[in-house]
Amino acid sequence: MAENKISNSEKTCTLKEVLDIIGGKWAMPIIYHLSKGKMRFKELERSVEGINTRMLVKELKNMEANAIITREVFATVPPTVEYALTIKGEKLMPSIVSLHQWGQEFTL
Amino acid sequence: MAENKISNSEKTCTLKEVLDIIGGKWAMPIIYHLSKGKMRFKELERSVEGINTRMLVKELKNMEANAIITREVFATVPPTVEYALTIKGEKLMPSIVSLHQWGQEFTL
Repeated sequence: MAENKISNSEKTCTLKEVLDIIGGKWAMPIIYHLSKGKMRFKELERSVEGINTRMLVKELKNMEANAIITREVFATVPPTVEYALTIKGEKLMPSIVSLHQWGQEFTL
Repeated sequence: MAENKISNSEKTCTLKEVLDIIGGKWAMPIIYHLSKGKMRFKELERSVEGINTRMLVKELKNMEANAIITREVFATVPPTVEYALTIKGEKLMPSIVSLHQWGQEFTL
Protein backbone atom coordinates (compact mmCIF):
# COMPACT_ATOMS: atom_id res chain seq x y z
CA MET A 1 0.00 0.00 0.00
CA ALA A 2 3.06 2.30 0.01
CA GLU A 3 1.92 4.22 -3.04
CA ASN A 4 -1.33 5.01 -1.27
CA LYS A 5 0.18 6.56 1.83
CA ILE A 6 -0.34 10.17 2.64
CA SER A 7 3.04 11.39 3.69
CA ASN A 8 2.52 13.40 6.86
CA SER A 9 -0.03 14.13 9.55
CA GLU A 10 -0.39 17.75 8.49
CA LYS A 11 -2.07 16.51 5.34
CA THR A 12 -4.68 14.57 7.31
CA CYS A 13 -6.15 17.94 8.16
CA THR A 14 -6.86 18.44 4.51
CA LEU A 15 -8.71 15.12 4.35
CA LYS A 16 -10.86 16.31 7.25
CA GLU A 17 -11.52 19.58 5.42
CA VAL A 18 -12.47 17.68 2.26
CA LEU A 19 -14.92 15.60 4.29
CA ASP A 20 -16.37 18.73 5.88
CA ILE A 21 -17.31 19.82 2.36
CA ILE A 22 -18.37 16.64 0.61
CA GLY A 23 -18.35 13.92 3.31
CA GLY A 24 -22.02 14.25 4.21
CA LYS A 25 -24.85 12.01 3.12
CA TRP A 26 -25.85 13.95 0.00
CA ALA A 27 -22.98 15.82 -1.69
CA MET A 28 -21.47 12.81 -3.47
CA PRO A 29 -24.81 11.45 -4.76
CA ILE A 30 -25.65 14.97 -6.06
CA ILE A 31 -22.25 15.24 -7.77
CA TYR A 32 -22.74 11.82 -9.32
CA HIS A 33 -26.09 12.86 -10.82
CA LEU A 34 -24.70 16.18 -12.09
CA SER A 35 -21.81 14.34 -13.75
CA LYS A 36 -24.36 13.28 -16.38
CA GLY A 37 -25.05 16.94 -17.25
CA LYS A 38 -26.86 20.10 -16.13
CA MET A 39 -30.01 19.57 -14.11
CA ARG A 40 -32.87 21.63 -12.77
CA PHE A 41 -33.77 21.59 -9.10
CA LYS A 42 -36.84 19.38 -9.62
CA GLU A 43 -34.86 16.90 -11.72
CA LEU A 44 -32.21 16.64 -9.00
CA GLU A 45 -34.87 16.24 -6.34
CA ARG A 46 -36.36 13.31 -8.28
CA SER A 47 -32.96 11.77 -9.01
CA VAL A 48 -31.29 11.84 -5.61
CA GLU A 49 -33.11 9.10 -3.81
CA GLY A 50 -34.27 9.87 -0.29
CA ILE A 51 -33.37 13.59 -0.24
CA ASN A 52 -35.96 16.20 0.74
CA THR A 53 -36.37 19.74 -0.59
CA ARG A 54 -34.85 21.44 2.45
CA MET A 55 -31.74 19.26 2.44
CA LEU A 56 -31.27 19.65 -1.31
CA VAL A 57 -31.49 23.46 -1.06
CA LYS A 58 -28.96 23.42 1.77
CA GLU A 59 -26.55 21.08 -0.02
CA LEU A 60 -26.71 23.00 -3.30
CA LYS A 61 -25.97 26.28 -1.50
CA ASN A 62 -23.04 24.69 0.29
CA MET A 63 -21.70 23.16 -2.92
CA GLU A 64 -22.10 26.46 -4.80
CA ALA A 65 -20.23 28.29 -1.99
CA ASN A 66 -17.42 25.76 -2.35
CA ALA A 67 -17.31 26.20 -6.14
CA ILE A 68 -18.24 22.57 -6.78
CA ILE A 69 -21.33 23.52 -8.74
CA THR A 70 -22.66 26.56 -10.60
CA ARG A 71 -26.23 27.83 -10.38
CA GLU A 72 -27.58 29.54 -13.49
CA VAL A 73 -30.90 31.38 -13.55
CA PHE A 74 -32.79 31.88 -16.82
CA ALA A 75 -35.37 34.65 -17.19
CA THR A 76 -38.23 32.38 -18.19
CA VAL A 77 -41.69 32.53 -16.58
CA PRO A 78 -41.43 30.95 -14.06
CA PRO A 79 -37.62 31.34 -13.84
CA THR A 80 -35.59 28.25 -14.70
CA VAL A 81 -32.59 27.36 -12.52
CA GLU A 82 -29.93 24.97 -13.73
CA TYR A 83 -27.16 23.39 -11.71
CA ALA A 84 -23.93 22.09 -13.22
CA LEU A 85 -20.60 20.75 -12.00
CA THR A 86 -17.57 23.02 -12.18
CA ILE A 87 -14.18 21.58 -13.19
CA LYS A 88 -13.41 21.37 -9.47
CA GLY A 89 -16.61 19.37 -8.98
CA GLU A 90 -15.94 17.08 -11.94
CA LYS A 91 -12.56 16.26 -10.47
CA LEU A 92 -14.32 14.56 -7.55
CA MET A 93 -15.75 11.94 -9.89
CA PRO A 94 -12.75 9.56 -9.79
CA SER A 95 -13.00 9.43 -5.98
CA ILE A 96 -16.75 8.85 -6.13
CA VAL A 97 -16.39 6.15 -8.78
CA SER A 98 -13.66 4.53 -6.69
CA LEU A 99 -15.91 4.47 -3.59
CA HIS A 100 -18.72 3.05 -5.67
CA GLN A 101 -16.47 0.32 -7.08
CA TRP A 102 -15.46 -0.61 -3.55
CA GLY A 103 -19.15 -1.03 -2.75
CA GLN A 104 -19.64 -3.21 -5.81
CA GLU A 105 -16.62 -5.37 -5.01
CA PHE A 106 -17.79 -6.10 -1.49
CA THR A 107 -21.45 -6.51 -2.49
CA LEU A 108 -22.83 -4.45 0.36
CA MET B 1 -15.69 12.06 -18.13
CA ALA B 2 -17.22 9.05 -19.90
CA GLU B 3 -14.92 6.59 -18.17
CA ASN B 4 -16.04 7.90 -14.82
CA LYS B 5 -19.74 7.36 -15.30
CA ILE B 6 -21.67 4.93 -13.20
CA SER B 7 -23.90 3.12 -15.63
CA ASN B 8 -27.35 3.06 -14.08
CA SER B 9 -29.40 4.55 -11.30
CA GLU B 10 -29.65 1.25 -9.45
CA LYS B 11 -25.95 1.52 -8.73
CA THR B 12 -26.37 4.93 -7.14
CA CYS B 13 -27.99 3.11 -4.28
CA THR B 14 -24.74 1.36 -3.66
CA LEU B 15 -22.92 4.69 -3.44
CA LYS B 16 -25.47 5.73 -0.82
CA GLU B 17 -24.84 2.49 1.06
CA VAL B 18 -21.08 3.04 0.91
CA LEU B 19 -21.57 6.53 2.33
CA ASP B 20 -23.80 5.16 5.09
CA ILE B 21 -20.81 3.10 6.19
CA ILE B 22 -17.82 5.38 5.64
CA GLY B 23 -19.27 8.75 4.63
CA GLY B 24 -19.32 10.19 8.14
CA LYS B 25 -16.86 12.60 9.66
CA TRP B 26 -14.53 10.02 11.19
CA ALA B 27 -14.36 6.72 9.31
CA MET B 28 -12.01 7.87 6.54
CA PRO B 29 -9.55 9.65 8.87
CA ILE B 30 -9.47 6.50 11.07
CA ILE B 31 -8.86 4.30 8.01
CA TYR B 32 -6.09 6.64 6.88
CA HIS B 33 -4.33 6.35 10.25
CA LEU B 34 -4.71 2.56 10.35
CA SER B 35 -3.23 2.33 6.84
CA LYS B 36 0.12 2.99 8.50
CA GLY B 37 -0.25 -0.16 10.67
CA LYS B 38 -1.99 -1.62 13.73
CA MET B 39 -2.87 0.83 16.46
CA ARG B 40 -4.16 0.75 20.03
CA PHE B 41 -7.25 2.69 21.06
CA LYS B 42 -5.24 5.40 22.82
CA GLU B 43 -2.93 5.83 19.85
CA LEU B 44 -5.89 6.25 17.52
CA GLU B 45 -7.51 8.71 19.90
CA ARG B 46 -4.35 10.83 19.85
CA SER B 47 -3.92 10.54 16.09
CA VAL B 48 -7.40 11.34 14.83
CA GLU B 49 -7.59 15.05 15.38
CA GLY B 50 -10.77 16.34 17.01
CA ILE B 51 -12.38 12.98 17.81
CA ASN B 52 -13.62 12.19 21.32
CA THR B 53 -13.62 8.84 23.15
CA ARG B 54 -17.33 8.19 22.70
CA MET B 55 -17.25 8.86 18.96
CA LEU B 56 -14.14 6.74 18.47
CA VAL B 57 -15.71 3.79 20.32
CA LYS B 58 -18.84 4.10 18.20
CA GLU B 59 -16.94 4.40 14.91
CA LEU B 60 -14.64 1.46 15.67
CA LYS B 61 -17.65 -0.76 16.54
CA ASN B 62 -19.37 0.26 13.33
CA MET B 63 -16.24 -0.36 11.26
CA GLU B 64 -15.66 -3.74 12.91
CA ALA B 65 -19.30 -4.72 12.20
CA ASN B 66 -18.71 -3.81 8.55
CA ALA B 67 -15.48 -5.85 8.40
CA ILE B 68 -13.38 -2.78 7.62
CA ILE B 69 -11.21 -3.28 10.70
CA THR B 70 -10.35 -6.10 13.09
CA ARG B 71 -10.16 -5.77 16.88
CA GLU B 72 -7.66 -8.04 18.61
CA VAL B 73 -7.49 -8.37 22.39
CA PHE B 74 -4.27 -9.49 24.09
CA ALA B 75 -4.33 -11.02 27.60
CA THR B 76 -1.92 -8.53 29.12
CA VAL B 77 -2.62 -6.70 32.40
CA PRO B 78 -4.36 -4.41 31.65
CA PRO B 79 -5.62 -6.01 28.41
CA THR B 80 -4.21 -4.59 25.19
CA VAL B 81 -6.54 -4.00 22.26
CA GLU B 82 -5.22 -3.51 18.74
CA TYR B 83 -7.12 -2.32 15.70
CA ALA B 84 -6.04 -3.08 12.14
CA LEU B 85 -7.45 -2.68 8.64
CA THR B 86 -8.83 -5.73 6.88
CA ILE B 87 -8.20 -6.21 3.15
CA LYS B 88 -11.65 -4.72 2.59
CA GLY B 89 -10.61 -1.69 4.64
CA GLU B 90 -7.28 -1.32 2.87
CA LYS B 91 -9.10 -1.23 -0.43
CA LEU B 92 -10.69 2.06 0.60
CA MET B 93 -7.29 3.75 0.61
CA PRO B 94 -7.21 4.66 -3.12
CA SER B 95 -10.54 6.49 -2.70
CA ILE B 96 -9.29 8.27 0.41
CA VAL B 97 -6.00 9.23 -1.25
CA SER B 98 -7.94 10.47 -4.27
CA LEU B 99 -10.18 12.68 -2.08
CA HIS B 100 -7.12 13.98 -0.29
CA GLN B 101 -5.40 14.81 -3.58
CA TRP B 102 -8.48 16.72 -4.67
CA GLY B 103 -8.17 18.77 -1.49
CA GLN B 104 -4.50 19.41 -2.19
CA GLU B 105 -5.17 20.45 -5.78
CA PHE B 106 -7.78 22.98 -4.82
CA THR B 107 -5.85 24.24 -1.77
CA LEU B 108 -8.79 24.27 0.58
